[in-house]
Amino acid sequence: MDNINTQAARITRIASILVVFFTLSFQANAQAPSDKADADFIRNIYAFTLTDSRAYSWLEHLSLRVGHRLSGSTGADKAVTYTRAMLDTLGLDSVWLQPVMVPHWERGDPENVQVVGSKVLGNQQLPALALGGSVPTPAGGIGADVVEVTSWEELDGLGERNVRGKIVFFNRPMDPTRIRTFEAYGGAVDQRVYGAARAAKLGAVAVLVRSMGLRADDFPHTGTLRYDSTVALIPAAAISTNAAEQLSRALREEGRVRVSMQLNCRTLPDVLSYNVIGEIRGFEKPDEFIVVGGHLDSWDVGHGAHDDGAGCTQSMDVLRTFKRMGYKPRHTVRCVLFMNEENGLRGGLQYAAEAERKGEYHLCAIESDAGGFTPRGFSFDAEESRIKGFYERIEGFQELFDPYGIKLARGGSGADISPLKSQKGLLSGYIPDSQRYFDVHHTAADTFDTVNKRELELGAASMAALVYLIDKYAVGK
Amino acid sequence: MDNINTQAARITRIASILVVFFTLSFQANAQAPSDKADADFIRNIYAFTLTDSRAYSWLEHLSLRVGHRLSGSTGADKAVTYTRAMLDTLGLDSVWLQPVMVPHWERGDPENVQVVGSKVLGNQQLPALALGGSVPTPAGGIGADVVEVTSWEELDGLGERNVRGKIVFFNRPMDPTRIRTFEAYGGAVDQRVYGAARAAKLGAVAVLVRSMGLRADDFPHTGTLRYDSTVALIPAAAISTNAAEQLSRALREEGRVRVSMQLNCRTLPDVLSYNVIGEIRGFEKPDEFIVVGGHLDSWDVGHGAHDDGAGCTQSMDVLRTFKRMGYKPRHTVRCVLFMNEENGLRGGLQYAAEAERKGEYHLCAIESDAGGFTPRGFSFDAEESRIKGFYERIEGFQELFDPYGIKLARGGSGADISPLKSQKGLLSGYIPDSQRYFDVHHTAADTFDTVNKRELELGAASMAALVYLIDKYAVGK
Repeated sequence: MDNINTQAARITRIASILVVFFTLSFQANAQAPSDKADADFIRNIYAFTLTDSRAYSWLEHLSLRVGHRLSGSTGADKAVTYTRAMLDTLGLDSVWLQPVMVPHWERGDPENVQVVGSKVLGNQQLPALALGGSVPTPAGGIGADVVEVTSWEELDGLGERNVRGKIVFFNRPMDPTRIRTFEAYGGAVDQRVYGAARAAKLGAVAVLVRSMGLRADDFPHTGTLRYDSTVALIPAAAISTNAAEQLSRALREEGRVRVSMQLNCRTLPDVLSYNVIGEIRGFEKPDEFIVVGGHLDSWDVGHGAHDDGAGCTQSMDVLRTFKRMGYKPRHTVRCVLFMNEENGLRGGLQYAAEAERKGEYHLCAIESDAGGFTPRGFSFDAEESRIKGFYERIEGFQELFDPYGIKLARGGSGADISPLKSQKGLLSGYIPDSQRYFDVHHTAADTFDTVNKRELELGAASMAALVYLIDKYAVGK
Repeated sequence: MDNINTQAARITRIASILVVFFTLSFQANAQAPSDKADADFIRNIYAFTLTDSRAYSWLEHLSLRVGHRLSGSTGADKAVTYTRAMLDTLGLDSVWLQPVMVPHWERGDPENVQVVGSKVLGNQQLPALALGGSVPTPAGGIGADVVEVTSWEELDGLGERNVRGKIVFFNRPMDPTRIRTFEAYGGAVDQRVYGAARAAKLGAVAVLVRSMGLRADDFPHTGTLRYDSTVALIPAAAISTNAAEQLSRALREEGRVRVSMQLNCRTLPDVLSYNVIGEIRGFEKPDEFIVVGGHLDSWDVGHGAHDDGAGCTQSMDVLRTFKRMGYKPRHTVRCVLFMNEENGLRGGLQYAAEAERKGEYHLCAIESDAGGFTPRGFSFDAEESRIKGFYERIEGFQELFDPYGIKLARGGSGADISPLKSQKGLLSGYIPDSQRYFDVHHTAADTFDTVNKRELELGAASMAALVYLIDKYAVGK
């Protein structure tokens, strides 16, 4: 090694690193907020969370000990018990369970979706998951020719003549050119939600849907469908993106491909479950509420780690951080872990109905339900007459979030909190980086090991910082 | 399932998603750049890259077929051959190898670092990696008591009396409260770089350094050290963060802990290697250059996937994208894969020296060497008299990058391109999200599977977009 050059190189490199840091630090200072106390308090929230948060260890338990937790499952029961017990350790003013009746759908024995006698694919198994709420196939399964479509126009163009008795295969991919992956999801998920109903209208016997993912892999992505009760309810399953590509290729090359499907799912009577709620009473306005939450249920595969164990444990962590830092909020701050976001939204509806009945005004509700990834922003929503006024005040917080790479913008919030919109308060959605979300969303790949501790914690700290500002400045009134 | 509520819920949810998208889209439009052609071209760059990039498959080969590639190793030779061959497929105007003599340090047989007869830890092995450039331990290894310090003041306070004959254990952690992990690195890496020299001055026989990582895990992080040739050259190794915590606990509980160390590394004579270069000749100013690059060498563990296979394959992809999109740059655009960034910077120094000799003015050089993670920004640097003028022009590009979540700021650039600074052109560093980087940096965990395809591609597209603007508007002149 040539020491002179190496030394010069190391010095240059380190100097260059230091220049980045000091420049960036300086810029953060140059953008210092007018209220230094807020900047300091927010810095302390981040420092506390990055060194003392429990979000990650709670999520580990929820992922590895409780596991997935679809509404009505024993996993969901265990999740209620566990998170309530954890909230009980925080010294909150109240912790309780809010009863709610939830749907109870079960997958049953693993799906069997298989190509039959294809020249290209032989009798290949296609990795598949029944869509949530799907009816089962008849005893003995279904065997039928497959017809592929990528749009509603194409489906309607085929008409009953070409669809009756067939399995319709919806194969429009998520658009990889959208930078925000939720946009790509929004442009494809209609196939999963409405595919079975639209295909049934034309006499199809079953539906296969390309998984809602951007990656080429073997994980099928489940998710809800929406039947139309005026036509037949036909079984529907998602197949992995790789399987969708293969099936499409076989159809192109052979013209005709037969698939057999066996789904063993069933819908049982509704069961009693709970939203899990903890609160710190406001010292000034105890009857006005700020909610921070996520949904406790998950799909019945993987760990539900990103969707939405992350949002739940981050929300719990916000209250723990306030307690441990000795912060006393002006308004009552609640952590709400909603049950049944995935296949019914009963928890969110129940919570809003009870709030309405008790006259509990929610000046703000924040939901984290887009994964435990590195923070990028918050979006804000409200009833039309109020959003402009609210957002003008929110914009005043922007410089406080600049050091954390967080952008405040108008936009949607979250499914569970959306029923609170009629109260005319402020709604907000936490926006983490979206690039990896649809690699795991609603799949067996949504596991604890895909969550990064710091990314999860930065989200929790960001949510605490936002709640702090909303509370202090009473935005949403 | 209650269809009415479920339907309402799904509608609400989907509507809420759509509101986010349309609002965000609208804002992107509201911030539309004055030059719509630029916005369109940049959108096309992203769309092309997200659907047709080769960066990920090149990185797969570089990671899984070539593997790690420390300067002087067969891996480095293979990497030169492979990347040159790939550049040869792109239809560039020239592809060539630029010779450079590089250091040749070898790790030799695996390290053995072991606690000896501790009550707390028994004879526990400590996961360790010799620091790059370290001398070996003498035949038979070293056995000595350990003395722990967390600052230079503490080391100097101990003085020769307490240090002579000991192994100094540098255990100052990276600061987890820094939001940008490179700041935390900058606040701790002095121990790794200067620890051996400073400890040797006081008579220490060896050095152990807590790994430069924020995660509690069992991966030791290697990296260069810098000896002081006026004092003894003593062996130095990094131990994992978990091992550092354990060793520290044993020292607290027992007062005295003995460790045995055997490092088998050696420094061989310098060997011939190469920078790999490809270029598209400028149609207007062929004698003025824009460089986009990363470093081809890596540490000798893991795959060197993030550090810096990512930067190399992104840089190659920029030229491929221009060729495939039919973009003809005004200035000559070069992709430079620098050899020996990690332990010598010889490639960077050689490139700059040759450029100087040939009078090649570089109006801009961009380096990607902070991992293949989701894009957050670019930082810009230049000689003091010029940075202000350059940066004012760069700021005009900000709105073009807003739709991609990319922030342009002043700051450092990259080690390999830093020797070009004396040309008084513009230097830039690509800044991806930094949260996961130090989980893998310089470790066996820096593997291909930790790189997300879209995140890698978004980085490549961002670099292409920046090169396009620099070229079109001739910033750096």
